[in-house]
Amino acid sequence: MADRDGVTIVVFSGDMDKVMAAFNIAVGAAAAGKETTMFFTFWGIKAIQKGNLTGKSFFGRMMGLLNRGGINRIGPSRFNFGGIGRWMFKQMMKAHNVTPLEELRKMAVELGVKLVPCQTSMEVMEIGREDLIDEVAEPAGVATMLEAAGRSTATLFI
Amino acid sequence: MADRDGVTIVVFSGDMDKVMAAFNIAVGAAAAGKETTMFFTFWGIKAIQKGNLTGKSFFGRMMGLLNRGGINRIGPSRFNFGGIGRWMFKQMMKAHNVTPLEELRKMAVELGVKLVPCQTSMEVMEIGREDLIDEVAEPAGVATMLEAAGRSTATLFI
Amino acid sequence: MADRDGVTIVVFSGDMDKVMAAFNIAVGAAAAGKETTMFFTFWGIKAIQKGNLTGKSFFGRMMGLLNRGGINRIGPSRFNFGGIGRWMFKQMMKAHNVTPLEELRKMAVELGVKLVPCQTSMEVMEIGREDLIDEVAEPAGVATMLEAAGRSTATLFI
Repeated sequence: MADRDGVTIVVFSGDMDKVMAAFNIAVGAAAAGKETTMFFTFWGIKAIQKGNLTGKSFFGRMMGLLNRGGINRIGPSRFNFGGIGRWMFKQMMKAHNVTPLEELRKMAVELGVKLVPCQTSMEVMEIGREDLIDEVAEPAGVATMLEAAGRSTATLFI
Repeated sequence: MADRDGVTIVVFSGDMDKVMAAFNIAVGAAAAGKETTMFFTFWGIKAIQKGNLTGKSFFGRMMGLLNRGGINRIGPSRFNFGGIGRWMFKQMMKAHNVTPLEELRKMAVELGVKLVPCQTSMEVMEIGREDLIDEVAEPAGVATMLEAAGRSTATLFI
Repeated sequence: MADRDGVTIVVFSGDMDKVMAAFNIAVGAAAAGKETTMFFTFWGIKAIQKGNLTGKSFFGRMMGLLNRGGINRIGPSRFNFGGIGRWMFKQMMKAHNVTPLEELRKMAVELGVKLVPCQTSMEVMEIGREDLIDEVAEPAGVATMLEAAGRSTATLFI
């Protein structure tokens, strides 16, 4: 059995607070020298989207509009109040010198965290490779995620 | 220490999208030959209910009505819009040849995934063994779940 | 590599049902003799707060009001209906002799479960050590959580 010291994070949620928790853990793990993989699926894909409108079919475009991606556009799971919550959170984080989400993602990339988009989610939501930030790895499926989990101490579903 | 190559999934959520993610991971793990256990607790129980109304006491029946089970009745965690979201999701999944949830559950059973209902949740929500699909294993508690986790590489809480 | 038989739970959610699931798993694990660590972050902090109003700045006090802590004040993730859901849940749990949340937390402490508050969350939400119950351990960061995860069979994000 291989050495198991990695951390694998399945990012299912597209909520700002959960995505922030995911990147915080990933950065902490990578900074400690652990092989760290983030697998973005379902709503989590939003955190690695560029932010442009997506979708081709009627449903796809509707989804792209309702669920528009981009790491600066996502709101918290609570107290969003039509965007005010997002603003309030950002103010509080700024006041306490918390690293903003986009910065955190950049740190993750620089520390070698692997950002893997879920292929099936991309197909169903009609999100193309060109809609994702350049830093992501090749889209992959559950098997790839489970392989990373097999090399990990901790696998989290966020 | 025993060989650790299994996957254990605690299905707490009763949301369509999360249940779908859970079954996708379970099917992927079982197909890769891993011992796979799903432990259904709280709202997750809905995914293994037949779909009839449940409950005996006043509160139990109220809960059974508000939180009616059945894998085809559950809605997504976002954009449900009183059932329209569920329909929209199903259309998009059909258009992209995604395996429907009921089919996915059947595959899981055929691949040997163990579906364990949480005994306490059943008692509190007044859900009987006869309200669950035939394929489930004996109801069990946290100890059983932790035993499976002890034989697993990855344990997810969904 | 050290013996891995612990259980680590990241309590991110402040919902009554999820917090209850977290403590149930923690108590089960500790009762089985496993080293058990709960790391309370973001909304999860509420489960180890005394319940007084918190915050110093305008935003901090607003957050303290909207998101008031205390284990008996938190509501379920579904069917809360402005507090009626919380009451209903408590009635159903009482009728079925389920251990109340506060009791469960006490059991966890007695069984040696380590309750670790997330330092960053405390700073951002302006929650002081004096706002938390006495039984908690020293506030710590992601590194401490990952260390516990490294000694664990299962690490859950709830």
